[in-house]
Parts: sequence; C-alpha cells; structure tokens
Amino acid sequence: MTEKALIAQIRRMAASALPKQTGRRGRPTRILTGIGDDCAVLRFLPRRGKQQDMLVTTDFTLEGIHFRRDWHSPESVGHRCLARGLSDIAAMGGEPVAAFLSLALPRDLPKHWVGRFAHSLISLAQKHGVTLAGGDTAESPRGILADIVVVGSAPKGKSVLRSGVRAGDRIYVSGELGGSAAAVWEMRKKPKRKLNPRVYARHFFPEPRIELGRILREKGLVSAMIDTSDGLSTDLAHICEESGVGAELQAEAIPRASVGKPARVVHLPFALHGGEDYELLFTARRGKRVPSQIAGVPITLIGHVTRGRKIILRNRDGVGYELEPGGWEHFRS
Amino acid sequence: MTEKALIAQIRRMAASALPKQTGRRGRPTRILTGIGDDCAVLRFLPRRGKQQDMLVTTDFTLEGIHFRRDWHSPESVGHRCLARGLSDIAAMGGEPVAAFLSLALPRDLPKHWVGRFAHSLISLAQKHGVTLAGGDTAESPRGILADIVVVGSAPKGKSVLRSGVRAGDRIYVSGELGGSAAAVWEMRKKPKRKLNPRVYARHFFPEPRIELGRILREKGLVSAMIDTSDGLSTDLAHICEESGVGAELQAEAIPRASVGKPARVVHLPFALHGGEDYELLFTARRGKRVPSQIAGVPITLIGHVTRGRKIILRNRDGVGYELEPGGWEHFRS
Repeated sequence: MTEKALIAQIRRMAASALPKQTGRRGRPTRILTGIGDDCAVLRFLPRRGKQQDMLVTTDFTLEGIHFRRDWHSPESVGHRCLARGLSDIAAMGGEPVAAFLSLALPRDLPKHWVGRFAHSLISLAQKHGVTLAGGDTAESPRGILADIVVVGSAPKGKSVLRSGVRAGDRIYVSGELGGSAAAVWEMRKKPKRKLNPRVYARHFFPEPRIELGRILREKGLVSAMIDTSDGLSTDLAHICEESGVGAELQAEAIPRASVGKPARVVHLPFALHGGEDYELLFTARRGKRVPSQIAGVPITLIGHVTRGRKIILRNRDGVGYELEPGGWEHFRS
Repeated sequence: MTEKALIAQIRRMAASALPKQTGRRGRPTRILTGIGDDCAVLRFLPRRGKQQDMLVTTDFTLEGIHFRRDWHSPESVGHRCLARGLSDIAAMGGEPVAAFLSLALPRDLPKHWVGRFAHSLISLAQKHGVTLAGGDTAESPRGILADIVVVGSAPKGKSVLRSGVRAGDRIYVSGELGGSAAAVWEMRKKPKRKLNPRVYARHFFPEPRIELGRILREKGLVSAMIDTSDGLSTDLAHICEESGVGAELQAEAIPRASVGKPARVVHLPFALHGGEDYELLFTARRGKRVPSQIAGVPITLIGHVTRGRKIILRNRDGVGYELEPGGWEHFRS
C-alpha cells in the first residue's frame, strides 16, 4: 500500500466520521482545517464565558514493545493507541478535542490491517467527540510504528495536575487494577493461544475514564490525579514525588480485577505493579465526600498521604512494608 | 541508557533552555505545565486584542527512512527533526510556540548520541522561542524513531492555507531549490565519504522560514502557501489540486541551489523534484507587489496559475511539457 493511498484511505474514513463528531452542542473548540494542509487549525472558544486552556499529550504505540501482531488484533491496536492519549486527557479532567496520528508501516503490511486499525481508532474517537485532524505517514524500516497526539481542553486554570497533594489527603482509584497485566501474563505463558478479547477487555479494549475525570474536576473533588498507565506503585510514586510526600496503602482495599473464564480475581502484585489499566488514581482532601460510584465507575478509597517520603503497603494484620515502584515493561521481545 | 535516565536528561536540558525561550515580549501563549504531567497545559492569550488560532503539525524522523546514522551527525538529525515541524508552521504564516518530542531508542544507542541530538534540537527551539513542553519515550525495537509535534499560533482566521488560489495568481518560491537533494545524490554515489555539513547546509541544517512566513501573512501578500518538503513538482501539485487549477512554470526562472566545493549550480531535476529544502512556495494575486527579498531571503517569481488542471514547464524557447509530480523518496535503504 503506497503512502498516498494510505493517506487517502484514512482521510476518507476520518471525513466520513465527522458529522457525528462535531454534532455535540456547546463544544469549546472548532477544527477549522484538518488533514490536508501543512497544519491543522484549531480555535478554542470561551465556554460559558470561561476561557479554555489547551491540553496536549503524545504516546507511542510500537510493534514489539506495546503490542504484538500475533497477540493483538488490528482493532485492539487501534483502540489502545488512541485510548492511551485519551486517558492522559482524562487524568487532567479535560475534554478531548482532536487527535493526530503518525503512522509508519512496513511495505508488506496487508491493506486490510490498516483499514481495521483505523476503523477501530476512529470509532473510539467518534464515541468521545474527537476529530482525527491530522498526522503523518511514512514507510517503516521495520514493524508498525504509531504515535498519537491528543489535544484537549479544560476551563482556564482548572486542569488537575499531578502536584498539589498534602499529607492527610485520601487516595482513591477508579475501577479495578491488574486486569491488563493478567492478560499479558497469560499470553506470555502460552504464546500460541489467542486470548478472548471480551474476557480480557481491560487489556484489549480499555475504556479511558473521560467522563469520570471531567466530573471529578467539575465537582472540585480532587487535589491531584494521574492515570494508571505505568501501574499503581509507579504512578503513585509520581504523584508523591511531585509534592514531596509519601503514602500508606491498605493492601486489602485495593480493588483487584476479575479476568478469565471462569473469572478469577488477579493476584495482588498484578494490581500493585501491572500497567495499562488506564484507571484514574487521585487524591482528595480529608474532609471531602467522594461518592463510591461516579458515571457508572466504582471509586475505592485505598489509603492516605503521609509526611514521610516512603510508600508503605499495610496488610490486614497491620504489618507494613515499603512498596517500591515496580516497572511496567510492556512486551519487550 | 534507561528510559527514566533519558527522560531526566531531556527534561534537564529543556528546563535549562527555558529562560531564553519565554523571554520574548508579547508572546500569545503561556506554557503552564510542561514535561512531567499527563498533559502539557497551554494557554492562548489574545494578542493586540486579537484571539489566536492554534496550529498543530506532526512529523516522523525515522532512521533508515529520513536519515542514516553513518551519513548524519546526531546534531543534524536533531536539527532536521524540529525543522520539519517548524517549516509547517512557517507555511501557515504562524508563530511556533511549543514542541513535543516522542523518541524511541534502541537499547544499545550510546548516551552521547542522545545528548548531542537533544542539544541541537533544543538549540533550534530556543532560537525560535519554542518550548520543548512534552513528549514520550520508549524503547525502539530497531533504529532511532522520533516524532515531533509543533504547536503554533496565528491570529484568528489569518492562517495561510494551501487552498484559495485563482487562475492568474503569480507563483513564487523563497531561497533556492535542489540543494538538499544534491546532498543525498552525493551520499548515494559515494556512501563511504562524509559530506561537509557546511557545504551542504540546506540538507544537514535547513533553516525553517518562520520569519518570512509570518511577514507574508502579516502583509496579506499571499493567497496560498506550502513548504517544499516533498519537492516543487509535488508541492505545487498539492496547491493546485486544493483549488482545482493548473500552473505554468518558467524553467529558466527556477532558482537552483549552489552546493559542493567548488560550488556548482544543481541540475534542474534536483530543483524540480528534490524534497526537504524547506523553502516556502506561495501564490499572490496578479497585482500584488512582492519584494525580491524579505527577511534576508530572496523571493523569485517562477510562474503563474492557469485554469487548466495541468502543470506545464516551459523552457527558454517557449516549448512546454507537462510536469508530473516526482515523488521524493528520502533514504529508502
């Protein structure tokens, strides 16, 4: 498939998805020029009289690192590619506006792979009112290489940062953790077997928590927020480092995913260190009343922020040990 | 070099370059949060009472496709990586604001390569008042992979698009063409020999025409504009297609680069089809007085827009033949 044909195909698909994308009322942004010029032109309009800040995030999706073609369908790769960026917007309490896809493909890639990949990515974009507004294409020297940029908006000065945490703040997490890592574990154990994407949906088709993030920001509930892309232990360490604080977690309280068929609760280390669940990890001041469910997503209190610099995990007997960030290594092959 | 060490290094370099970057008065944008949060937060401020539109462009720089490590120094790769994005902003008449660098590196890459690459990229950013505000890092399955995003601004509704051309418009190009392609030709001919980057500067260290683009937009001189990243024949075809018109070029008028030592004027096909010169190709209405030099860059009238759909190249004897877009193939290896 030539570069020109690829651009034309994605452009057509993006254009046909446009009407629904721009149908939402009161959107704070207009895409004036999208694919086909030197740059996309975006206009940020005031919303309810409030100026908008612009959010930008960029994430790689590389074959052999973030996915494997024998394990992940093109639909899963397209979905996860955009979900990574959307999740970053969610973690700021923002609303996604536009996406830019840079895609480098090996010369021998079947055309249908690209079509299925792009269709899935654009479907997720559409669902969240996001326009695919540009990008770049190239021939890849080896493997499929994608880089997704998502641009979002948040009312002026209201973005939820990673910093701003104080000792005494409560620590919450949305949904369940470890489901994505458990899928990777299964695939590593039996590389020949195809996993059922519906049974391991959190890995193959993660839902970015856009609505939850926006509501948390609007209600002024949170002091800091991050998405669990690297895993709880690493992402909590990021938050703590930014504010020079520590944390204490209750091992029992950490919500662990149920995966597989029959469904089984994942082991604690998956929930502690497994990445790519794309849940929201956030803190709230002690007195704040945080609902146990928001926008259909369960919210769980898992610990509190401390003055020390360490992160302590306490088991049900009250015994605590230091929790070191456990690196999430994707699919190094 | 670990991913964490890489992020830390680039973050330090970007931070140390900040003061000069934000020193310009009256900038229409503030970077509120850069590297180190889920998203960068940018605020577009009105300038002289005028709202700003936001420009976004994204470009790959892939080893083996856009550069070769045995031909290009890390400094050249870093410079060209950002120059590609800046040139797209120039082609809209915009001002660059922030850059986002996604960088995937092979495990065995020497640390000094990254330092030299990043230093050169950040130097060019600084020169144009651009903040390196974020990005992503990953391990590369093979070769160095970079994707640069540049965000810019232009006064509301004033961005110069590729469309808007009318029959009778005059066609101009900045600087000289073919210099970059001539360097590629030399390297292909004698793969073992290192070219002197100063003698082939337009290839190794192209200067994006930011100031020229801005002045052309401010003076309202141009009807459409594009940068010559794919080569004159291809980029002119882009402009013509957008408006459903054709063009006639005078072969004699096309400014050809002088390269090598002793310096020689490049052959016409290099100037017609060679890409990556990053000059500005633009059209202006017939009556407009376009200076022969703007911001120190020569401007040359090379032809005019016609009603037909074809692009005709006419030689000094008045004989014309159709000019087909000649694809620019980078460094396919």
